[in-house]
Amino acid sequence: MLNRVALLVEYDGSAFYGFQVQENQRTIQGEIERALSIIHKGEFIRIHPSGRTDTGVHARGQVIHFDTPLSIDPARWPQALNGCLPNDIRIVEAACVADDFHTRYDSVRKHYRYRVLNRKERDVFRRNLAFFVPYEMDLDLIRAGAAHLLGTHDFSSFCVTNADVKSKVRTLHTLQVNRQGDEIIFDLIGDGFLHNMVRIIVGTLLEVGGGRRAPEDIARIRDARNRAAAGKTAPGHGLFLWQVFYEQPIFQNNGAASNDNDA
Amino acid sequence: MLNRVALLVEYDGSAFYGFQVQENQRTIQGEIERALSIIHKGEFIRIHPSGRTDTGVHARGQVIHFDTPLSIDPARWPQALNGCLPNDIRIVEAACVADDFHTRYDSVRKHYRYRVLNRKERDVFRRNLAFFVPYEMDLDLIRAGAAHLLGTHDFSSFCVTNADVKSKVRTLHTLQVNRQGDEIIFDLIGDGFLHNMVRIIVGTLLEVGGGRRAPEDIARIRDARNRAAAGKTAPGHGLFLWQVFYEQPIFQNNGAASNDNDA
Repeated sequence: MLNRVALLVEYDGSAFYGFQVQENQRTIQGEIERALSIIHKGEFIRIHPSGRTDTGVHARGQVIHFDTPLSIDPARWPQALNGCLPNDIRIVEAACVADDFHTRYDSVRKHYRYRVLNRKERDVFRRNLAFFVPYEMDLDLIRAGAAHLLGTHDFSSFCVTNADVKSKVRTLHTLQVNRQGDEIIFDLIGDGFLHNMVRIIVGTLLEVGGGRRAPEDIARIRDARNRAAAGKTAPGHGLFLWQVFYEQPIFQNNGAASNDNDA
Repeated sequence: MLNRVALLVEYDGSAFYGFQVQENQRTIQGEIERALSIIHKGEFIRIHPSGRTDTGVHARGQVIHFDTPLSIDPARWPQALNGCLPNDIRIVEAACVADDFHTRYDSVRKHYRYRVLNRKERDVFRRNLAFFVPYEMDLDLIRAGAAHLLGTHDFSSFCVTNADVKSKVRTLHTLQVNRQGDEIIFDLIGDGFLHNMVRIIVGTLLEVGGGRRAPEDIARIRDARNRAAAGKTAPGHGLFLWQVFYEQPIFQNNGAASNDNDA
């Protein structure tokens, strides 16, 4: 008799080779499965994420699930696991879920945040948490460009070329761009995201904000359905998997893994 | 003919074995001297800090000086050096100073800040930037204890036992304790600080804030002039050398290395 448990997970991706297990590399999955193995007295427990994150990418609200023979009160899972985890991964909350629940297939929306440090000088304390862009950005131009991406489109231009997916049609519900202090914050909410989709969208919109492309170019790039038409991929270290949404909320704190204090 | 140059330096101490050069270890001094050597075409240039910082300790406003045969406009030093430095050290500003200026001997006051993350759960993004204290703290108790340390005292109880200094008498001008969001911020300004003085003061005051010592104990500890009388040394990673003051301000931004945005 196995119990399916879902975990809300926060991590600083700086010191990881991404989520997925790789031999001889430090990964999120590797660390969590190692911690679960300790609690299960050596038994291997496979975890399943809502989506894999790349090297350097962070998470405020990643969701994973696994099956366990143990009957542990969900309130006790975080403390048990956090005691076995390094201090750049934290289990925020745990919940018992149905046997057929799946973090990836059942997610209905995802929220990604991308942080850009936009000032003349870099900041040693945010070097791994925000993409440093020293030149002036016009947020009105960025927003005008972003408007062409809202709604349902084939996002082939904003996806790595070798992606193995049936359809590259996705729906982008929200693409907000705001200034918070010396940062520009991109918030994207959609039904699903292709590989590197957020980073290519942000990289291309930053070219618009810097005046190197016109906002109308974004419509042309979108319609080209060709990765080569878009701009540079923004680096992973500015990206945060912020929240994963399900038909029914799983966690008490509604999937926002922490307060909004900038780290 | 040598020119003496002072630099305002910011660093994230997380990945360093402190300031002072050590063989086979990554240090602030080692990295800055390496960068200076590149700019001086291999010539070794010795730097002198206002004070050495320990492993894990950060700086918003460290000040160093060095002598150079080069005549470079001060405004151009930061860019030249930052191009040769890793991204966890940044030269904020440079200034030409008198030949007899010394960052350490001429400093009249120093400002240290200590950050405590005071909430139930740790934060993966601040694991190296604030000391995590999960239990409840009474700021009124901390402030009542702190009052006993203001002014001129023999701070032997708040200094590592093997410190090689003539006098352990120092003057503490300011010891403020404030809550900022989920953090407790200690700001200490004094004419000089003994080795580990800030960290032992903070560690002892946290014991007062947690109810394990009475505020009046601080006067008794102070008068004991014995390290064993005080509490635990708070860890280095919560400590920031915030600003160094001189009779005449050296830098345009007055030594505050950056804005007050929490990192």
